[in-house]
Amino acid sequence: MTWTNAKNQALRERAARVIPGGMYGHQATGLLPDEHPQFFARASGAKLWDVDGNEYVDYLCAYGPNLLGYGHPAIEAAAAAQQRLGDTMSGPAPVMVELAEQMVSMIAHAQWAIFGKNGTDATTLAMMVARAHTGRRKILVAKGAYHGAAPWCTPIRSGTLPEDRAHQIQYVYNDAASFERAMREAGNDVAGVFASPYKHDAFVDQELPSPEYAQRVRELCDATGALLIVDDVRAGFRLARECSWSLVGVEPDLSTWGKAIANGHPLSALLGSEQARAAAQRVYATGSFWFSAVPMAAAVATLREIRESDYLERTQRLGQKLREGLAQQALTHGYALRQTGPVQMPQVLFEDDPDFRKGFCWTAESLKRGVLLHPWHNMFLCAALTEGDLEKTLAATDEAFAVLRRREPELGPVEKLRFLAAHVGE
Amino acid sequence: MTWTNAKNQALRERAARVIPGGMYGHQATGLLPDEHPQFFARASGAKLWDVDGNEYVDYLCAYGPNLLGYGHPAIEAAAAAQQRLGDTMSGPAPVMVELAEQMVSMIAHAQWAIFGKNGTDATTLAMMVARAHTGRRKILVAKGAYHGAAPWCTPIRSGTLPEDRAHQIQYVYNDAASFERAMREAGNDVAGVFASPYKHDAFVDQELPSPEYAQRVRELCDATGALLIVDDVRAGFRLARECSWSLVGVEPDLSTWGKAIANGHPLSALLGSEQARAAAQRVYATGSFWFSAVPMAAAVATLREIRESDYLERTQRLGQKLREGLAQQALTHGYALRQTGPVQMPQVLFEDDPDFRKGFCWTAESLKRGVLLHPWHNMFLCAALTEGDLEKTLAATDEAFAVLRRREPELGPVEKLRFLAAHVGE
Repeated sequence: MTWTNAKNQALRERAARVIPGGMYGHQATGLLPDEHPQFFARASGAKLWDVDGNEYVDYLCAYGPNLLGYGHPAIEAAAAAQQRLGDTMSGPAPVMVELAEQMVSMIAHAQWAIFGKNGTDATTLAMMVARAHTGRRKILVAKGAYHGAAPWCTPIRSGTLPEDRAHQIQYVYNDAASFERAMREAGNDVAGVFASPYKHDAFVDQELPSPEYAQRVRELCDATGALLIVDDVRAGFRLARECSWSLVGVEPDLSTWGKAIANGHPLSALLGSEQARAAAQRVYATGSFWFSAVPMAAAVATLREIRESDYLERTQRLGQKLREGLAQQALTHGYALRQTGPVQMPQVLFEDDPDFRKGFCWTAESLKRGVLLHPWHNMFLCAALTEGDLEKTLAATDEAFAVLRRREPELGPVEKLRFLAAHVGE
Repeated sequence: MTWTNAKNQALRERAARVIPGGMYGHQATGLLPDEHPQFFARASGAKLWDVDGNEYVDYLCAYGPNLLGYGHPAIEAAAAAQQRLGDTMSGPAPVMVELAEQMVSMIAHAQWAIFGKNGTDATTLAMMVARAHTGRRKILVAKGAYHGAAPWCTPIRSGTLPEDRAHQIQYVYNDAASFERAMREAGNDVAGVFASPYKHDAFVDQELPSPEYAQRVRELCDATGALLIVDDVRAGFRLARECSWSLVGVEPDLSTWGKAIANGHPLSALLGSEQARAAAQRVYATGSFWFSAVPMAAAVATLREIRESDYLERTQRLGQKLREGLAQQALTHGYALRQTGPVQMPQVLFEDDPDFRKGFCWTAESLKRGVLLHPWHNMFLCAALTEGDLEKTLAATDEAFAVLRRREPELGPVEKLRFLAAHVGE
């Protein structure tokens, strides 16, 4: 079938009338190649179909939620069974207790759980709990790290006030000297420290923390009484069956979860240690759908798969093959790729591509051949991905490299990213 | 069957170990009678069953989301059909455009829609859009009004900073002089005005706005360029098939929706007028599950029922009968009730009950007879409620009044509400 996008374009035109800018947020395609589909009709396993019927091997995974495969039978069966009983009721269902018990049993530092909907719900609550626990104000965040879209953390400042970020201090991720400087600046007013599990910022190479750095962060939190918060919303359960900083031997006081914990059903969580329990009890945490039972039933089924299946090793094995395959292809076609981050959450950037013209062309040509990649955001592998999908992927990317080689002389800079450069971090 | 709560108590004990305080937020029962069930096993239509198997006619309606009946067949069929296609994918489904078109077609002031999960998502975005649109800072909110649980609006201050409420000015709801004073205080820095559709604060009598008051608010917003935001999260589609202030002849610039718009599926919305579109486009609005298709499909089906059924007139008719029945019973038993708010969102308070001892006893005795009422928060009627349910309700409340009469001499003040009085609005 030839790749076409007439239906997607027609929907975009309708959307432009009733949605600001035609779409908003991280699933808006305004900063992606023009060919990137805005609307999807169907999803199954590791595959997506856009509204024009084009099929894709999907390396976006809904930007994180799809961990085990779209429409995972056991998880959807658990969700449907709970739906028949009740979802959003006048109080929670017993599955809420079961889920909290399971999270606490699986995550070493955690003694309690609070559930929300958005990752931002969890990170905002974490900040509040840190302030309530310490009675202090300063919050340390790594420069460029994403912790959500609320006024205190949104990467785009429109509609926010300087006061929304009062008492925030920035540090450079994985740089102990910078972190120590920020802690000194916070002095005896430090409430909490946000730590991404690794540097998974958009547009740049990803960076794993050194164990020494992570341990230094823990030491200084212990020395000052500040709560250490690992924001595992994006990477949670993708690196480990534990909090991601278990890989560097550090337990946080609080950890924030979302995205994949219910394999696509809307759920986030704040987990905490015993010492933070009293503060968590004092903070008002609520939302209209925070007690809904269906996403919790889906999460219980997801956690079972996480414990009992080889999903993690599988995504790592396939991610490694993808990385090696792409590296070999790039070499063959005379390109240098920077492939960073965990192999199951790959970031793929072209060397010498400051205006993203190569990355945009390559991902556009790949998607026209049935593979959905991202030119500047980390990608995700789900456990439903097969060896056959990987072969199809590498066949498509090989052709895309060849097209890039032919078309490179005519490519111009990606004007959209000028908009971005002008607006992010304003 | 005799009312028992052993299973509920056992779950509470398990919950106390893994959830701060045993439960959090508006569905925690800590401020309700001891007998109030914390956990529910099942819901259908206007009925709930707790984990001990007790059946209730439910006047809490999940605190708003249940508008048309739990497990509404047409809505659940639409949700299940979309679930089979895809829910949280790497982009939105076409149903997002359809839903935005329908919201815009039904709500006169609205030209565009942004969807989120929590009501707080919508109110926070409304504040940001007002600030982005005007380039100003001050936000007016009515004293005591609930607009969500984020640091800028949570009714409990633990974990928040004074800076979180920078540039907020309070006014007294439905008091034009107070509102004018607040507008003068804001001066030329006023960005937006939050207006509840009516005063639906907890613990107190509800109050409908006068048309003159609402029109004065509109006039002063027009005069200053501030955006008028009607927060219809709780009352949206319960008073009208339009924005609730259509009843007082006033169109806002922004309106916030949630709770009932997908009949229990997690969805909220910010709707806006043409003049606010450009600002809405500049504000970063996103969340992990904001593009999920299932709640949107449920919302499209809910909106169809809203347009085509007599759900509104039905809840009003039954609400009127409930109010009249309770008033007659109270009189018979020698009590004076203050029944305020729209009949389909009733607030029922006892006269001369400053420490809620009468209200607690009466609701506790009612629930032991199969009727779930709330002693200090507005209640909700859903369209699945039947005349038979109403008869059962009035039989239970009549007995509850008789028990209250017998037990009144031995009742003491509700100690829990002393906690509340000490913590709300701190």
